[in-house]
Amino acid sequence: MSDAARRLILDLDTGVDDALALAYALGSPDVELVGVICTYGNVTMRTAVRNTVALLGLLGHDEVPVLVGADRALAATAPFSPSEGVMRIHGENGLGNQRIAGLCRCAPGDGLDFLREEVRRATEDGVGLLYVPTGPLTNLAHALGSISGLADALGRVTFMGGALAVPGNVTPCAEANVANDPAAADAVLRGGLRTRMIGLDVTHQAILTREDTAAWRELGTPAGRLFADMTDHYIAIYEENNPQMGGCALHDPLAVAAALAPTLVGCLHANLRVDLEGASRGRTVCDPDRLRDSHKTCDVALTVDVPRFLGEFRSRVGRALS
Amino acid sequence: MSDAARRLILDLDTGVDDALALAYALGSPDVELVGVICTYGNVTMRTAVRNTVALLGLLGHDEVPVLVGADRALAATAPFSPSEGVMRIHGENGLGNQRIAGLCRCAPGDGLDFLREEVRRATEDGVGLLYVPTGPLTNLAHALGSISGLADALGRVTFMGGALAVPGNVTPCAEANVANDPAAADAVLRGGLRTRMIGLDVTHQAILTREDTAAWRELGTPAGRLFADMTDHYIAIYEENNPQMGGCALHDPLAVAAALAPTLVGCLHANLRVDLEGASRGRTVCDPDRLRDSHKTCDVALTVDVPRFLGEFRSRVGRALS
Repeated sequence: MSDAARRLILDLDTGVDDALALAYALGSPDVELVGVICTYGNVTMRTAVRNTVALLGLLGHDEVPVLVGADRALAATAPFSPSEGVMRIHGENGLGNQRIAGLCRCAPGDGLDFLREEVRRATEDGVGLLYVPTGPLTNLAHALGSISGLADALGRVTFMGGALAVPGNVTPCAEANVANDPAAADAVLRGGLRTRMIGLDVTHQAILTREDTAAWRELGTPAGRLFADMTDHYIAIYEENNPQMGGCALHDPLAVAAALAPTLVGCLHANLRVDLEGASRGRTVCDPDRLRDSHKTCDVALTVDVPRFLGEFRSRVGRALS
Repeated sequence: MSDAARRLILDLDTGVDDALALAYALGSPDVELVGVICTYGNVTMRTAVRNTVALLGLLGHDEVPVLVGADRALAATAPFSPSEGVMRIHGENGLGNQRIAGLCRCAPGDGLDFLREEVRRATEDGVGLLYVPTGPLTNLAHALGSISGLADALGRVTFMGGALAVPGNVTPCAEANVANDPAAADAVLRGGLRTRMIGLDVTHQAILTREDTAAWRELGTPAGRLFADMTDHYIAIYEENNPQMGGCALHDPLAVAAALAPTLVGCLHANLRVDLEGASRGRTVCDPDRLRDSHKTCDVALTVDVPRFLGEFRSRVGRALS
């Protein structure tokens, strides 16, 4: 058992940058990854489970439980399937079309039951519990309505999603994670929970290049090779769609990094809502009804210390892949 | 002649809150108002001229020149006419339907010629020249293209307009001044000029109540009575449309205040653009192509010291109305 002072639960829709976030967490000695709850978005929830199990195996952490989460948005009537565009970005299998042997774990447990038990355990032990969603906020919205003591136990939830001052990536207004379940994001942002939003405002500033993936390949490990190949696929799509970036955005790892070290980002303290209808559907925006409330629930990251983050990223992910 | 160390040119579409901005400037001993260039928006440009002349007379400052500016957006083929909604907010005459005797000044001068001469004079005298537009940025866009040395002479232009992290007031994305000429705002924001954006992010936090207008009425001056009645009209519309605000937003005066005292607001340093098409037309948003440039041209106000601003507002406007 780790003697890290804090525990971490990831809530992943395990595509390429979720895999990087997972490696970041496993390479972080200052936190114990106690479980991964899966969701849909970059892939189906079932594929996220399969990918997470396989990645944990590859990274030598079979002991970390993988849990089943929501397979669709709050308002959806059928399980979510990723669009062709999303499958292009993350690959058909969510991992840049890289083959990865997945151990079959039979009947993964239920994410909400797991979270409830971890909340109880953290409260009992007096240990901090970090919860970092990097996909739609559906699991967290379900948890808010069903787990007592959740807000107190989680403190401030750091999530990847949204776009406050920059354009969205699925519409001019909407970022993908929020667009995949605007009602869940709105419930989380207006539900009183304290949050830290790591949106496109900052993730589009944190760029990984092929120099970094080349260094992973040179580690000579299976994990280094797979992560290099998988991320090169992701970078290639960025080179087509966003050539001015010069690499790929490190969306999900930045959320894990900011959860562990909040001073990596500079934030606006604000009360947000999500537009639920019309052309701006899925936009994260300051809630006019709470603009003058002195109590602000969300720290919205608008600036990021990129060199410091990239230093942490290289060090921690490098450790996980070695 | 004032011995104020700085000169100020206002660029007004003179409706109710422009009148308050004018009074704020005239009640400020630390700056000399050297002229008002008129534009369209809350009213037609011609009505803005008439209102500005009348207000300057009422406030005892007939010496301040009033200049003719743009009467339409860069791309428009006919002079601008305010919508019925705008006429309801500011009154048919732009001043809350209050009667005000206007001195007829024959043939007001040309705004661009005036600005060119003031730029020359300020450069020659080594005096700071503040330029504060509180309507569409059309005049400034014209000036950028035709007055050499403009950017150096003006330093940082503080304008009222835009909405970065909050909803717009004419569409979910667009604020009225920018919506009235998105191309002009985009030209200004991407033209290399240094700017300070005082948008709805902060103006919707700075609220004037009927207690303040009652105090003006008690001054017993014609200006006090007119400003009280005019602003009560404006507050009444807010009470109908935005009852949760508890008064009216002090849009334009806050821009003048922040131009004179930039520490009144807390800013994000950013490079902005304006969306020119589609449902988000008129939205001010961070320009993805310049997100990682270390050189930022715009200080976007996101927080405001409301008590300090209201203190300055009461003191300066009270002085102008006495």
